[in-house]
Amino acid sequence: MRQEFVGHGASRGSALGRARVRLPHALEVVEEHIPESAVEAELGRLHAAVAGVRAEMHALRERLHGALAHEVGEFLDLHSLLLDDPELLQGLDELIRNGRCSADYALRLQRDRIAAVFETLDDPYFRSRVDDIDQVIGRIHAALHRDEARPAGVAGEILVTDNVAPAELAQLQAQGVMAIATTAGSVLSHTAILARSLHLPLVTGLPPTLLQRVNDGDVLAVDGGGGRVILEPDAEDLRAHRARVRELARERKQLYRLRREPTRTVDGVDIRLFANAESRADVAEAHALGAAGIGLYRTEFLFLQRQAPPDEEEQFRAYRDVVLGMTGRAVTIRTLDLGADKADRAGLSVRAEPNPALGLRGVRLSLARDGLLDAQLRALVRASGYGPVRILLPMICAREEILRVRAALDRVAGELRAQGHEVAERVPLGAMIEVPAAAIALPGFIDDVDFLSIGTNDLVQYLLAVDRGNEALSDLYSPLHPAVLRVLRYVIRLGQRAGKPVAVCGEMAGDPHFAPLLLALGLCEFSLHPATLLEVRRTIRACDLDALRAQAPALLRARDRAAIEAWIGANMPC
Amino acid sequence: MRQEFVGHGASRGSALGRARVRLPHALEVVEEHIPESAVEAELGRLHAAVAGVRAEMHALRERLHGALAHEVGEFLDLHSLLLDDPELLQGLDELIRNGRCSADYALRLQRDRIAAVFETLDDPYFRSRVDDIDQVIGRIHAALHRDEARPAGVAGEILVTDNVAPAELAQLQAQGVMAIATTAGSVLSHTAILARSLHLPLVTGLPPTLLQRVNDGDVLAVDGGGGRVILEPDAEDLRAHRARVRELARERKQLYRLRREPTRTVDGVDIRLFANAESRADVAEAHALGAAGIGLYRTEFLFLQRQAPPDEEEQFRAYRDVVLGMTGRAVTIRTLDLGADKADRAGLSVRAEPNPALGLRGVRLSLARDGLLDAQLRALVRASGYGPVRILLPMICAREEILRVRAALDRVAGELRAQGHEVAERVPLGAMIEVPAAAIALPGFIDDVDFLSIGTNDLVQYLLAVDRGNEALSDLYSPLHPAVLRVLRYVIRLGQRAGKPVAVCGEMAGDPHFAPLLLALGLCEFSLHPATLLEVRRTIRACDLDALRAQAPALLRARDRAAIEAWIGANMPC
Repeated sequence: MRQEFVGHGASRGSALGRARVRLPHALEVVEEHIPESAVEAELGRLHAAVAGVRAEMHALRERLHGALAHEVGEFLDLHSLLLDDPELLQGLDELIRNGRCSADYALRLQRDRIAAVFETLDDPYFRSRVDDIDQVIGRIHAALHRDEARPAGVAGEILVTDNVAPAELAQLQAQGVMAIATTAGSVLSHTAILARSLHLPLVTGLPPTLLQRVNDGDVLAVDGGGGRVILEPDAEDLRAHRARVRELARERKQLYRLRREPTRTVDGVDIRLFANAESRADVAEAHALGAAGIGLYRTEFLFLQRQAPPDEEEQFRAYRDVVLGMTGRAVTIRTLDLGADKADRAGLSVRAEPNPALGLRGVRLSLARDGLLDAQLRALVRASGYGPVRILLPMICAREEILRVRAALDRVAGELRAQGHEVAERVPLGAMIEVPAAAIALPGFIDDVDFLSIGTNDLVQYLLAVDRGNEALSDLYSPLHPAVLRVLRYVIRLGQRAGKPVAVCGEMAGDPHFAPLLLALGLCEFSLHPATLLEVRRTIRACDLDALRAQAPALLRARDRAAIEAWIGANMPC
Repeated sequence: MRQEFVGHGASRGSALGRARVRLPHALEVVEEHIPESAVEAELGRLHAAVAGVRAEMHALRERLHGALAHEVGEFLDLHSLLLDDPELLQGLDELIRNGRCSADYALRLQRDRIAAVFETLDDPYFRSRVDDIDQVIGRIHAALHRDEARPAGVAGEILVTDNVAPAELAQLQAQGVMAIATTAGSVLSHTAILARSLHLPLVTGLPPTLLQRVNDGDVLAVDGGGGRVILEPDAEDLRAHRARVRELARERKQLYRLRREPTRTVDGVDIRLFANAESRADVAEAHALGAAGIGLYRTEFLFLQRQAPPDEEEQFRAYRDVVLGMTGRAVTIRTLDLGADKADRAGLSVRAEPNPALGLRGVRLSLARDGLLDAQLRALVRASGYGPVRILLPMICAREEILRVRAALDRVAGELRAQGHEVAERVPLGAMIEVPAAAIALPGFIDDVDFLSIGTNDLVQYLLAVDRGNEALSDLYSPLHPAVLRVLRYVIRLGQRAGKPVAVCGEMAGDPHFAPLLLALGLCEFSLHPATLLEVRRTIRACDLDALRAQAPALLRARDRAAIEAWIGANMPC
């Protein structure tokens, strides 16, 4: 029977598909044995599922971009390792072959075996690995059943659950999830922000009865914009779904026309949209969509998955290609931003740290390793001969660090000129503002930098002392804290007074929902992944800057998140 | 031949003893075999050394206090575990018995064996464990040689090295180190702060030649106050040493007289010195030294090393005893301040976190666990029937958290009154200011709290994004960052305007070197461990508050650490 559930539209898009219901603690398997004759078939089923998961994870790795690639990539790498663990797989084979267990039951037994070993250990680190085992086993379990539940050719699945962690989203999408419906969550949560950046329809805050009424395989229609989920949609609902799909396609077409339009507010002020990029495809897309330049080119990918850091020549070629790809528009390249949690994958030996987010990372690591900074600076300065390059330093905490890099930059540029290289007269040097101390002590070093880029992802993490990857704290992690707004306002204003450009390059800048807020705080430069550049442009073109700035005092008076969310609700254009 | 080295006096005290030189990478052992007849004696030597290390670590664990207990305690627990590892010890026995290795050589071989296994692992966490193995092996190695190098009855050792990590200090002291002489380091480093709190003489910034000139066993005289180290002291030096020892004893006696004196500045302003405490002995000492009350009573020790959290009754008795012990002076009790890195030792199941410092800890954990907060609040409110109790909340990040605790507190107090308990009419509720967002957003919630306590240890850590336990960053971790001073000034001023008391309870407050700076910033309440209470009182009694406050603008204009250090140097009284 048709039933309609109303929640909040957190990420637009319309989806029609079968429900996959995930209740808390889903993997409940009964003891199940198989006849000897079925053993080979069961082994085949298991191996196909494992191969499927492997392919799925590989495909997922490929399509991740931006901050997500870093956050989710780590989980994926770890899970891939576990999936290749011969002990896990041989154990499963043995349970099926000799124990005559069904593949499901074997998964359960093997999971319990491994968990039992891990849980006796006194070390919380090992114990946490049980969760990873659970997730990998869960993936295989899902793959075992995917084929049964979803005959080929039928549309993808719609996940119905209580809540979804930010880090899960991209994985779910790659697993074929077309839309998500949750009973918890809010429109401005970290999960919602990521869902929008993935263009994955999401409805949050649905009534809890949803989880009881909907069963696996039920047909659902999801309206991510309107915030509605319909169980067993009727003919009228299907018509509405098709109309929404057409409408979205039309909209997308209109949106694409904006690639040649300026990012100008209703009252005629031009805002600059730069692109975050780390691949050739990103750069090409940024150019095609009319980005003002590259606001954040990440260089980590050059360093990861190898034994030793790339040499100057290799780096130079990579940076030069970005510069050439942007045909004269400014290219801001960030120096290596790795910490102990990833440095080993870059052939850099860094002692493991109990809190890598508060460790030897970013510019600290570059300054601590002889040659690392010099090689990168030389490559960057050489690239400046091919077009406008700006150098951005991650994790700046104190003036002393900027002065040290500045000295190295001057020395390197002098050497290159002496060696006959054609390099820019001056390569602007900027600081990421993501460490709270840098924001607060900015008056003391703003004269020492040429531009600023506020990394809201890390800034929020440190200001709030909340690891943004920590699921237990996903409610706490939010840029909508009065302290975050005050710091943004402070940095933007100081930059303007000193005549230094200030951009925001975190996820906030790439989500149209936050554009009015950032404009009200005085921001004139956004740096965001090309995937949402046109949507942000569209929203800004609907904004009245004067009116928004008049609302800034009310925004800064907000005492808690609810008040800030209310402000956003009241000031969204159209 | 007598030789004098001049550095900086970082921690006072005079020491005369034999040198122990620690060069970087000290454990260099040559291949050495022993005859069969010597095997039993060598095994005895090894076992005695291991037993000695075990006793040393136990003794050390006992004498740690305050923040140090938490920071160093963790290393000690881990090392104790390794020391009890049968594989390590049996391997050593076998190498001596069957391989006829000397104990030293066996240590070396066993170390390399374990390290080889660990280093092949792909996991940076495991690889870091090699450092722990090295430290435990190093301890045993030192113990093997201590007896030879130091005949019984002779004075302790003086460590001569390049640098010492903060976490090592207490261990070194327990190992019999009487003083430390380093070529690196500064007077206001984290290491120097801890050395002063341990009353361990320390001279830093000595000429590098020191490491070449001094050999193990050489006699040294160290003047921690004057910043001098004398190799092969002559009769004059010995007289000077004895004079210093007498002078220090006399001073200590005079200092002790200050226990009955007010903490009053030269210009007649009374400053309130509260004590940090977590044991009965701390409370008794605080009372005896004339502390204004307890400014920070840590409750973690009640929860650690057990299977389940203590119930209301057990907590109530502990809190009541503190209240009674302070005979009517205010007692500020902090609710549970644990995170994932320690929660398992308190019978609280918290998922291991990649960055526990940015995780589910402090009030977040209390709010996340049903019953945990309620039981503690009930115990605290019941204790308020016996004297003035104030409740302090750790890791406050947002107004919402305070409102939730306030609601729980009101409910609990109502219930207790209804049950016939005699409780205070109002139990003041305060917030730790240690999360940057709380400091910055303070205007939005200052009306919701009764008092504030600035936890500089964590505040510095989050503001600078530097884990204070991370040795690789010990140069970066410092409260002498312009941003830290600005935040202190801001919070102190807001508190004064709103009529809410503000204390500082981090290590800064317990070090006389920082007292003039804190007074200049407007601070009127210090909370510190009783061990340095009288020294801070003495310094404050020598300060002219008016003159210091006139110097505050110059302090706040400082752009880097050097400028702040210069300010401190220029404004130290006497």
